[in-house]
Amino acid sequence: MTPPLFDDAFREKLQALIAWRRDVREFRTDPLPEGIFERLVATASLAPSVGLSQPWRFVLVEDPARRAAVRDDFARCNAAALSAQTEERAGHYARLKLAGFDQAPLQFAVFCDSATEQGHSLGRLTMPEMAEYSTVAAIHTLWLAARAQELGLGWVSILNPDIVAEVLSVPKNWRLIGYFCIGYPVCEDDVPALERLAWERRRAAAAFILRR
Amino acid sequence: MTPPLFDDAFREKLQALIAWRRDVREFRTDPLPEGIFERLVATASLAPSVGLSQPWRFVLVEDPARRAAVRDDFARCNAAALSAQTEERAGHYARLKLAGFDQAPLQFAVFCDSATEQGHSLGRLTMPEMAEYSTVAAIHTLWLAARAQELGLGWVSILNPDIVAEVLSVPKNWRLIGYFCIGYPVCEDDVPALERLAWERRRAAAAFILRR
Repeated sequence: MTPPLFDDAFREKLQALIAWRRDVREFRTDPLPEGIFERLVATASLAPSVGLSQPWRFVLVEDPARRAAVRDDFARCNAAALSAQTEERAGHYARLKLAGFDQAPLQFAVFCDSATEQGHSLGRLTMPEMAEYSTVAAIHTLWLAARAQELGLGWVSILNPDIVAEVLSVPKNWRLIGYFCIGYPVCEDDVPALERLAWERRRAAAAFILRR
Repeated sequence: MTPPLFDDAFREKLQALIAWRRDVREFRTDPLPEGIFERLVATASLAPSVGLSQPWRFVLVEDPARRAAVRDDFARCNAAALSAQTEERAGHYARLKLAGFDQAPLQFAVFCDSATEQGHSLGRLTMPEMAEYSTVAAIHTLWLAARAQELGLGWVSILNPDIVAEVLSVPKNWRLIGYFCIGYPVCEDDVPALERLAWERRRAAAAFILRR
C-alpha cells in the first residue's frame, strides 16, 4: 500500500473537524444510517492501544428498560452533583443540559477489559492505566469519525460506574469508561456549550506548556 | 461562523489518517519546523475535556540531563518488564524497539492536573478519572494532527511515573499520563509494528461489540 499524502486542504479540514467537534446534549430524533454503529466501532478499533491489546468493549444499549435504568442513575448522580456546587453556581448548574437520553437514537456504553490477555501486558507493568487510556483513544477516534458524518456525540460521566455495569450485565472486571449518546445535533458551533453558557472559558495553549 | 461541510473525499482521507497513524519508535533526526510544538499543543487544546477543565499539561523536555534521566528510567523499567515475560516470549520482547529517545528531535511529557479549579468539578464527582481521560483525548488529538503533517509520535509508558515527575520538577499532584517522542518516521505503514513483528494481531471490530 502507498502511504497517503496529506495536503494543506486536508489539514485545514481536519483542524475544522477538531474545532467543530462538540460534546452534544441536544439531538434530533431522526434515525441514523443503517450499520453506522458497526462502522464507527470498526474505525475506532484502529485506535492506538498499549501492546496492541484493544481493550475497548462497546455495548450498544437498545433495551428500553436498561436505557431507563441508566437514565435514572444519571438523575440521581446529577442531583447529588448539583447539591455539591456552591450556592452561587448551583443556579447555573441547574440550567445546563447534561444528558441527551430522551432524544438520542443511539446509546452505548464503553468499558475497558484490563484483564485481556491480548497484548501480553506489553507497556502496562508500570502504568496499568494504559488500558483505560487506550480505550479513551478509541472513543475519541469514534467521536471524530462521527462528527465527519455530521453526527454529534455526548459523553455522560455523571453516573455510578458500578450501577451502569450491573444494569448492562457485563463481566465483573470490566470498568466503565463512559456512556454515550449519538444523533444528529440540533445545532452546530465551534464554541463549547459550557463556554456559551458561561460555565467556564477555554484557555489558550500557552497556559498548558512548560519547558524543562 | 458557518459550520464546515465534510464530504466523502475528506472522510476517506480521515479514514486513511486514522489507519496510517502509527506508534513510531524509529525516527529520522531531521529537525522539525519552527514552532511546531506550540501549534500542535494549540490544536490539542481543542480536545474535549470534562467540564471544560483542560487539565492537560505539556512539558517540553529539552535539557540533555533530564532527557538522559528519563531514558535511564526507561532502561530500568524495560529490563524489569523483559524479565516478567515468559521465557517463550522474552526473546521476542528483546527484539522489539520500544523507545525512540536517541533520534527523536522533540520529546515531551504530558501530565494531568486533576486538582485544577477550571471546570468547577463538573462531571467528575462519580468519575474523577475523567480528568485523565480528557488529557488522553488531547494527546490523541495532537497525535492525529502530527500525523497529518507527516510527523510520527511514539508513546512511551514503560516508565516509573513518580521518577519522571521528579526528573521534570513538576508540581507534586500532577500525574504522568505519558512520555512522547516526535520526529519524522523512518518508515510508514498501515500495519502496527507489533503486528508486523508478530507480537500480537489486531482483532476485527465485531469482537468488541455487545448488545443489551
